[in-house]
Amino acid sequence: MAPTAIHKVTLEPKLTKTSKADNTNDETGQSIRLAARSGTFTNQTSGAAPTYVQANLIAIPARYASDFRLLCKRNPVPCPLLAESSDVGNWNALKSQVPGVTGEQIASNVDLRKDFPRYMVYEDGKLVKSQCLQVETEWTEDHVGFLIGCSFSFESALADAGLTPAHMAHGTNVPMYRTSLPLCPAGVFKNATYVVSMRLYRKEDVERVRDITRPYVATHGEPIDWGWDSVSRLGIEDITKPEFGDSPVLPNGSALSQMADSMAGDIVPVFWGCGVTPQEAVRQATLQGTVLGHAPGHMIVLDLRDWDIVPEGSP
Amino acid sequence: MAPTAIHKVTLEPKLTKTSKADNTNDETGQSIRLAARSGTFTNQTSGAAPTYVQANLIAIPARYASDFRLLCKRNPVPCPLLAESSDVGNWNALKSQVPGVTGEQIASNVDLRKDFPRYMVYEDGKLVKSQCLQVETEWTEDHVGFLIGCSFSFESALADAGLTPAHMAHGTNVPMYRTSLPLCPAGVFKNATYVVSMRLYRKEDVERVRDITRPYVATHGEPIDWGWDSVSRLGIEDITKPEFGDSPVLPNGSALSQMADSMAGDIVPVFWGCGVTPQEAVRQATLQGTVLGHAPGHMIVLDLRDWDIVPEGSP
Repeated sequence: MAPTAIHKVTLEPKLTKTSKADNTNDETGQSIRLAARSGTFTNQTSGAAPTYVQANLIAIPARYASDFRLLCKRNPVPCPLLAESSDVGNWNALKSQVPGVTGEQIASNVDLRKDFPRYMVYEDGKLVKSQCLQVETEWTEDHVGFLIGCSFSFESALADAGLTPAHMAHGTNVPMYRTSLPLCPAGVFKNATYVVSMRLYRKEDVERVRDITRPYVATHGEPIDWGWDSVSRLGIEDITKPEFGDSPVLPNGSALSQMADSMAGDIVPVFWGCGVTPQEAVRQATLQGTVLGHAPGHMIVLDLRDWDIVPEGSP
Repeated sequence: MAPTAIHKVTLEPKLTKTSKADNTNDETGQSIRLAARSGTFTNQTSGAAPTYVQANLIAIPARYASDFRLLCKRNPVPCPLLAESSDVGNWNALKSQVPGVTGEQIASNVDLRKDFPRYMVYEDGKLVKSQCLQVETEWTEDHVGFLIGCSFSFESALADAGLTPAHMAHGTNVPMYRTSLPLCPAGVFKNATYVVSMRLYRKEDVERVRDITRPYVATHGEPIDWGWDSVSRLGIEDITKPEFGDSPVLPNGSALSQMADSMAGDIVPVFWGCGVTPQEAVRQATLQGTVLGHAPGHMIVLDLRDWDIVPEGSP
């Protein structure tokens, strides 16, 4: 998958509640949604509308919905549930799963069938369509859409601290990997394993990176593992070849595969739970019927802001 | 560790809200707590006061409390947080973490220092006292006690369905094992791994066992893994030698180690998240200061009933 990002990435000033000032390109959640809906925005969304919370999609037949909610409850790190369809079949109103926030506040003026830049379609557990721009014809009255928090949400905070993820600085998609780390099963969702996103950091910065991302509990929170040993611990075969997103780049923009061995003591991979996990769980459960997901990295951008989901007083 | 249980285990009639009828031996949460407090009840608690919810203890210095809460939030299956000290240092009033239930309803007339039949004491991450009857002298004004759900809570429901766990039927403690399955880290709690409890079941009964325990989300819920392959998947070295509790017994009461190979196709191990996990997480984090836990299998029995934590309409 080639890098597709074209929008300019800027280092944002310190995160505050002064709204417009922290978003130099005037993008909002709604502006990105409307652009995706009309088919004019088709890119990955890392760095899009900074401080607006982003989310992953999984839409499944209603008979699997309660098992899926339980899967999220038992595995909140890879599957932090933000919202779901207000009713079975509904694609334009949300029911919030975030305490103290309404579905309307998460996103008003929403169309779950079109507001993601790109989609994936599964039939009976098999991928049948990839990277399509909308799923209007595939969505049925029996679908329940779920929005899962996305790690792009804490990238602004990392950038604020001078820890801009390399993929963000260079306009590529974050690398994402299948792992052998099992989810806690829930009903039909058995044998599922974590998908993780990865960002490279200097070893000495890992504790700061943990501290900064820790409060983002609704969007995967702190890393699940880090260091070169974690690659085999997670069952990742080749870190230069992610299953989703783009190949990892170093801070200077060159490919990770080009890294001199001498740097491996200094720079280490850091892994977070990833919202592609539910899509993999659905694939692994070979659900019958039509399942809709976003294309990895191509998120819906919500009206919700970072500070709506991070408790006051967090770093 | 030799079996210590002496109280009679009876198969209870179908779980209903008619209170006394379902507890033929007239034990209540409070009667067990008072007996433990006075030092007259010192046994493991599997089968004690059926339908009264049981809980694990971990009491830690206050500076680690917020990281511990986050550990529970990120790992709700092994660490389902039911309640904590109402204030730092408090051992006789609880703050509830169960929606719709007050601390007073979880347990009134409570003494976290004495109401568990047996305790463990750690200093700077090292076990210094084992199986002691109370921890009055070790508890300080700086301790925060946490109560974690216990899988004994769904054993009544299994018994109701004719699926009495063999250890319960034969009056022994449930076998518990350390595993290599990592928890999601949280602050100081890094490199921690699951502890699991195990019950043997016929392969054909596993889906029913999953269904029955699924609603008990506050007390570990459905199993995390099952089948003979799961033993190596979980990194358990010898299933006949649990690290905590008693050696596993077969339905006929003989040791698992005596099982004929011909039975292995029919009878399989089923593993649940276990509330000893937080105690192991504390040990693995080598927290500084004094940490107090219950002795595995020796739970506090609460005023809360099974139906207070299982949603209406569950199987």
